[in-house]
Amino acid sequence: MGVEFLKIKESEEAKEIIQEKFDELYSPQSEIIDIADSYERITFSDIKSRIDFPPFDRSLKDGFAINAKDSYGVNEENPKRLKVIDFLEAGSFTDKTVEPGTTVEISTGAPVPDGANAVVMVEFANRESDNPDLASDEIEILTSVTPSQDIGKKGSDVQAGQVILEKNKLLNPPKIGVIAAQGIDTVEVYKKPVVGVISTGNELLTNQEEIKPGKIYDVNSEMIKAGVESCGAEGKTLGIVKDVYDDLKAKITESLKECDILLCSGGTSAGVGDNIRQILDEIGTVYIHGITVQPGKPTILGVVDGKIVIGLPGNPVSAIVIFNVFVAPSIKKLAGFVDEQPHKTIKGKLARRIHSPIGRMQYQLVRVEDGIVYPIFKDSGAIFSLASAAGYTKVSKQTEMVEEGEEVEVTLFN
Amino acid sequence: MGVEFLKIKESEEAKEIIQEKFDELYSPQSEIIDIADSYERITFSDIKSRIDFPPFDRSLKDGFAINAKDSYGVNEENPKRLKVIDFLEAGSFTDKTVEPGTTVEISTGAPVPDGANAVVMVEFANRESDNPDLASDEIEILTSVTPSQDIGKKGSDVQAGQVILEKNKLLNPPKIGVIAAQGIDTVEVYKKPVVGVISTGNELLTNQEEIKPGKIYDVNSEMIKAGVESCGAEGKTLGIVKDVYDDLKAKITESLKECDILLCSGGTSAGVGDNIRQILDEIGTVYIHGITVQPGKPTILGVVDGKIVIGLPGNPVSAIVIFNVFVAPSIKKLAGFVDEQPHKTIKGKLARRIHSPIGRMQYQLVRVEDGIVYPIFKDSGAIFSLASAAGYTKVSKQTEMVEEGEEVEVTLFN
Repeated sequence: MGVEFLKIKESEEAKEIIQEKFDELYSPQSEIIDIADSYERITFSDIKSRIDFPPFDRSLKDGFAINAKDSYGVNEENPKRLKVIDFLEAGSFTDKTVEPGTTVEISTGAPVPDGANAVVMVEFANRESDNPDLASDEIEILTSVTPSQDIGKKGSDVQAGQVILEKNKLLNPPKIGVIAAQGIDTVEVYKKPVVGVISTGNELLTNQEEIKPGKIYDVNSEMIKAGVESCGAEGKTLGIVKDVYDDLKAKITESLKECDILLCSGGTSAGVGDNIRQILDEIGTVYIHGITVQPGKPTILGVVDGKIVIGLPGNPVSAIVIFNVFVAPSIKKLAGFVDEQPHKTIKGKLARRIHSPIGRMQYQLVRVEDGIVYPIFKDSGAIFSLASAAGYTKVSKQTEMVEEGEEVEVTLFN
Repeated sequence: MGVEFLKIKESEEAKEIIQEKFDELYSPQSEIIDIADSYERITFSDIKSRIDFPPFDRSLKDGFAINAKDSYGVNEENPKRLKVIDFLEAGSFTDKTVEPGTTVEISTGAPVPDGANAVVMVEFANRESDNPDLASDEIEILTSVTPSQDIGKKGSDVQAGQVILEKNKLLNPPKIGVIAAQGIDTVEVYKKPVVGVISTGNELLTNQEEIKPGKIYDVNSEMIKAGVESCGAEGKTLGIVKDVYDDLKAKITESLKECDILLCSGGTSAGVGDNIRQILDEIGTVYIHGITVQPGKPTILGVVDGKIVIGLPGNPVSAIVIFNVFVAPSIKKLAGFVDEQPHKTIKGKLARRIHSPIGRMQYQLVRVEDGIVYPIFKDSGAIFSLASAAGYTKVSKQTEMVEEGEEVEVTLFN
């Protein structure tokens, strides 16, 4: 495995390498779940119709099922008298046949009986109460209808075997309705990849500890776990580990057993604490160490036992930006977000000029208010700025300055 | 209670009445949850800082902590030699004091020791390896620094007691990070209102049953439950009930015990099966029966024992549209979506003319492709159209026609 000299990568090149490694090492997995749990999951395969829908010729109106021929030439001046031989509510069924001169009273959704091929709406018929000349089992129709009028023909909406929902679709209420209409109770969806999250650093406290001199609370575990969830994957916090070679190596080796992908934050800078690079060189292969971006230059991509290990910067602002830019797209793809993107972008005018270092792609945190984009300038250790950050905007490495008033694209956190 | 004559309501009036009843009968509830479960929940109260952040003066760079006075007049031609009295990594702490002529080597994130008030970056210092004149415990600095340079002062990001996150905010990864930075392990969020969902209709089958003549599968239970989830509430399917007065009355009475709000679909049309109206008149009060909209005219709002019961149309397309237009906004507000709206709208040009009945607000299902809005014209019983529907667009009751090419607003399903 040994140590390879790695040139610092350009931003786009790094994205490509990460996506290639994901594609090479993982293939999306599926699971069968109950339709009741399917909201916001993603279809893994095309869903085909089990039945024709409607499953029978059904009435689209409350009225009278007739043979259309019985209505030819009929109008208000020339009504036609018919004998009512049955009454059908939705859900009921008759084996009587509508012969010429007869009709079945029918509710919306009820099956059209044999012999009938059209429905006269109740508004266009008289009963005994409207015309005393009629017997109690008689009505008269006041209009002519054409064959198929106000009938939803069997299979007219969907035919058995037809694809009703394609794969890679995010299940929302109407799509779940379409599946339910087929009497389908389970659905094959993308399985959520399990992404482990480790924070490294001697200065880190868990939220169960009292604050101590020189220590700070661990931010990245819970934040990156939520970031993983925002990609449609399952995040698993695996704790804090001291930046000590053997401890960290043991933790990485053990953690890889319980997740598909491992994200470590901290311990990636050059100099003191450059442990992750050395560990990944020892137990696996490192493909990226360093990207020409700001913030987040010391990002690492390694592979151990066929699983991806990513070293994110320890600084929380850098960690969440690097996660969103470089890691989230690949996790989302593996989790099934192929056709639909969970992270939205918006455009807006810049409220203040952004200065940017030449030679590095810069990701600038921004607030957005009433469509105006406000860059958030803070020193790199500031965390509070994340409370108001809507997302980030990208400044290319050839650009030294983006002027106030220019339109920029913002990738939103979610 | 008794039966009151109710005039059919205009769309906007109906929305107002529904929101008024929600505001009158419910107040948002909160619960305390673990921060690990907080993704996409909504803060119920302002969250205040427990600690100053940074909790101590900390170094923003790898370098040497000095008293800035020691650097006055220093440059590459006039370096200043200092004795290194300690080394501090992030997370470590020293009780030594930096006296004039001394320094402590310091890593990014480590606490600045007493006596020091600035950090000289490692790039601007020589060690013994750079200058053999130096002793092994000596360095020389090559630049002058100002007091506070490259130090994150205690409390400079946030001070104890300051509001770090306001109420009514949707928790996304960066916001969760801000809370975690405070060592806060639980967060008060809006409790999800429990919304019961009942389907009524003699024609309905559960997805566990075989298809039978005259019957169709229940769509609304799972679809409306998912709709409830899309509002940030908890949906609870309570089953199918036959459209029989006593059965339905018993089911409604019993269901109200296990939910805050009850949604029934079907059984609301005039004529056959107008049971829900009569039951709500008997056991409660009806405030709306009928709205001048298409689809979905026979919508009902009632109150029983201080809880809202809504009767949605049985037709699935009508049911999901009426749910989204009239019910979802009030459930969302109760679930905490005050500042942020989960249902997005987009604008696009209409691909084909829409005809609309005068005197009724019309909600037209649409597909959206490449920003073009395609109306979906299907008979009212069609369900499959929901598979491709992105959402709906509104045609006001005074409008008879919206022309091809006109810009329309689409409310997206999600």
